Amino acid sequence: MSERVLVSQLKALDDGPVSVSGWVETVRDQKKVQFVILRDETGAVQLVNPATRPAEDGSEQDAAALALTDLISNLAHGTFLTVTGTLKHDERVKLGGVEIKIGALEVAAASLPETPIATDSSLDKRMDWRFIDLRTRRNNLIFRIQTTLEHAMRNYWVERDYIEIHTPKLMSSPSESRAELFQLEYFGDQTAYLAQSPQHFKQMAQAAGFGKVFEIADAFRADPSFTSRHATEFTSIDAEISWIDSHEDVARMQEELLATAFQAVKDKHGAEIEELFGLEVTVPALPFPRIPLAEAREIVKARGYEIPRTDGDLDPEGERQIFAHVKETYDHDFVFVTDYHPEIRPFYHMRNPETGMTNSYDLIYRGTEITTGAQREHRVEVLEAQAVEKGLDPEGLEHYLDFFRYGVPPHGGFGMGLARLLMLLLGESSIREVTYLFRGPTRLAP
Amino acid sequence: MSERVLVSQLKALDDGPVSVSGWVETVRDQKKVQFVILRDETGAVQLVNPATRPAEDGSEQDAAALALTDLISNLAHGTFLTVTGTLKHDERVKLGGVEIKIGALEVAAASLPETPIATDSSLDKRMDWRFIDLRTRRNNLIFRIQTTLEHAMRNYWVERDYIEIHTPKLMSSPSESRAELFQLEYFGDQTAYLAQSPQHFKQMAQAAGFGKVFEIADAFRADPSFTSRHATEFTSIDAEISWIDSHEDVARMQEELLATAFQAVKDKHGAEIEELFGLEVTVPALPFPRIPLAEAREIVKARGYEIPRTDGDLDPEGERQIFAHVKETYDHDFVFVTDYHPEIRPFYHMRNPETGMTNSYDLIYRGTEITTGAQREHRVEVLEAQAVEKGLDPEGLEHYLDFFRYGVPPHGGFGMGLARLLMLLLGESSIREVTYLFRGPTRLAP
Repeated sequence: MSERVLVSQLKALDDGPVSVSGWVETVRDQKKVQFVILRDETGAVQLVNPATRPAEDGSEQDAAALALTDLISNLAHGTFLTVTGTLKHDERVKLGGVEIKIGALEVAAASLPETPIATDSSLDKRMDWRFIDLRTRRNNLIFRIQTTLEHAMRNYWVERDYIEIHTPKLMSSPSESRAELFQLEYFGDQTAYLAQSPQHFKQMAQAAGFGKVFEIADAFRADPSFTSRHATEFTSIDAEISWIDSHEDVARMQEELLATAFQAVKDKHGAEIEELFGLEVTVPALPFPRIPLAEAREIVKARGYEIPRTDGDLDPEGERQIFAHVKETYDHDFVFVTDYHPEIRPFYHMRNPETGMTNSYDLIYRGTEITTGAQREHRVEVLEAQAVEKGLDPEGLEHYLDFFRYGVPPHGGFGMGLARLLMLLLGESSIREVTYLFRGPTRLAP
Repeated sequence: MSERVLVSQLKALDDGPVSVSGWVETVRDQKKVQFVILRDETGAVQLVNPATRPAEDGSEQDAAALALTDLISNLAHGTFLTVTGTLKHDERVKLGGVEIKIGALEVAAASLPETPIATDSSLDKRMDWRFIDLRTRRNNLIFRIQTTLEHAMRNYWVERDYIEIHTPKLMSSPSESRAELFQLEYFGDQTAYLAQSPQHFKQMAQAAGFGKVFEIADAFRADPSFTSRHATEFTSIDAEISWIDSHEDVARMQEELLATAFQAVKDKHGAEIEELFGLEVTVPALPFPRIPLAEAREIVKARGYEIPRTDGDLDPEGERQIFAHVKETYDHDFVFVTDYHPEIRPFYHMRNPETGMTNSYDLIYRGTEITTGAQREHRVEVLEAQAVEKGLDPEGLEHYLDFFRYGVPPHGGFGMGLARLLMLLLGESSIREVTYLFRGPTRLAP
């Protein structure tokens, strides 16, 4: 590659010749001097050019200087270019304390003059032009944070000998129910379904004796809702482990994982997050608080909120209330709500014979549910009975039940939406803001 | 969790009480003594029990001892259990030099007595019962290697400030052609297509100023072929970088990435790979050889093979021949074949104005193509002309072309199939062997 210098490296360089590449953020075209703010993936720098204008008296001017001035005057926002010039440190320059006097300017790709979105455009409009929307420093940072967050999680798992699996997204039968399922024609007469979660297959890894597995991958839900927390396609963070005693072992792994990942984000991006999002990254203390669901409902009620839903679960306002309680009582952002009744849990959750409750939890972060975790039922006769009790047709579950017929150790795991986690970490109002390209019922492009 | 000890940790422990969990690999039920080989995710250990049989003279025996003997006699392969007992180091025990005298044995989940597959079952039959097939040490190792390989790649990228992206797999329009495309009904009257590659979206990241990105994720091809190298769903390793001078910058990154990842695999699994696959991991020397396609064809011809296809490309036998040449001449397993004619490349490959060839390469590893890499055309008017020249309808490309209308820097990248890479690294005959759950035209389950 050419001797391109990243903007973040400029400050450490001595004054002298330099070459930078990026895109035009703004042009300030004054009569005597022109300023261009050039941004690359690491920062922004001010470029300067003493303007050479056609002389009013018609006297001859340097043709190259005229052309350069003219070129700069006509630069559109978003034009990608390379500038070679002279770096100069100057404390008066607010932007990084350096500027580059333009020697030569080479346009790599010109942008159309009118940018179709502005900072105050609606979210929907910004999504139409997501590739331009992502050019802001704030949006760029979101995906750097995502990278750090995920990598820290994978490090946590790999250091502990987890196996990374890639489960298929094309399935011959729906894993749980037929609701919210995308289906497609598969080579003529077959029907394939898009996986709603890797649940089925990460349990298979336990039958295969893999012990501990993880996957960060796509999941699909044909969910017609338009809330700020739902998408038809999302990145799911999943893990599953063998030889657990209960869901507590899963919860302990997940809280450690989150604390480790948040610490990595804080270390690498803490200052920038404070600058651009106006908030401090809080690394959660271990262990996270745990509250049984029945107790959580009592607490919410005592706070003056009557949960309207009758199935015994929390509703979104209930989740916010229990978070408020946890924040006030423990100064904590997370809470595991435990002891869910089997009626509001899938058939494969293991049940505690003493309490009749499932060995499962929801993890609530800043008032929004981000995870369901559970110990799975691994005894095939119990599993089959629970499926029938839920009105499921065991025939559609044959491939799943087969795993258990040949032995599966006690196991459990969790699934967590990456975008929800990021949204709450950064105090954003919608997962659309932290998803590279959001997919919803009316959003399939770009 | 209980004080479970992993089999791999036993050797370092002193003789004494211990608890292990795993599944039954074999039972040797002799008259006076019973042996169970128990396997967990880290290894196998011999369990021993002095058999207590009903006395022939009818005299009374210890009931618990009789029951334990009987339980062991009836253990089926694949039954998951926990044994607490007494660890004893004994050099005469071939399997790790230790054995455990069984104190108590608790069955977590019994397996049906007849295992549906054996080591000599057909590949197709083994795939039907993949979760049992994966219990072998060799298959388990494959996915540990996969984990190490991927993690080393991600480390390489993260250390160099790449951004990890998750591109959508649901698209409103086919990115290249309508061939080999899965489509589905999307909320009534819309049609969605499953992404054949993240090409479209990782280029968008360049328009967004992300600079350098990577993704390891699912891709889908409705490809009816049944070869050992094709799947309808596969894990694609993708990277894309900005401000390159040509495809050479991409090739240099890819060869460094592969050498780094292979080194990690060799360091962590080299000895086990030698034991179980009978081969040594070769870390490829840098740089990889490069041969222009026209020259490669000459070499193949000189070796006595006439390539039947007339479009100028290599065929599979041609790829094997050029590998044989490279192996003999450079003792190298990889070769970049370069300078492909635009006729056999997609419309978006940049062309070299001097040679008329595309700025692209195929990477051939041990005689099989694993990658196409290229510099992309980023000048919208050239791109549009090349699309029209290929007979593509620009209307279907509007979202794609929009990226370029607002400026995209020079960029390029590659896509590489994870399973092909693993197959060739381990000398396997089919990607089915190294895919967690293979998907093909007649294979959607389990």
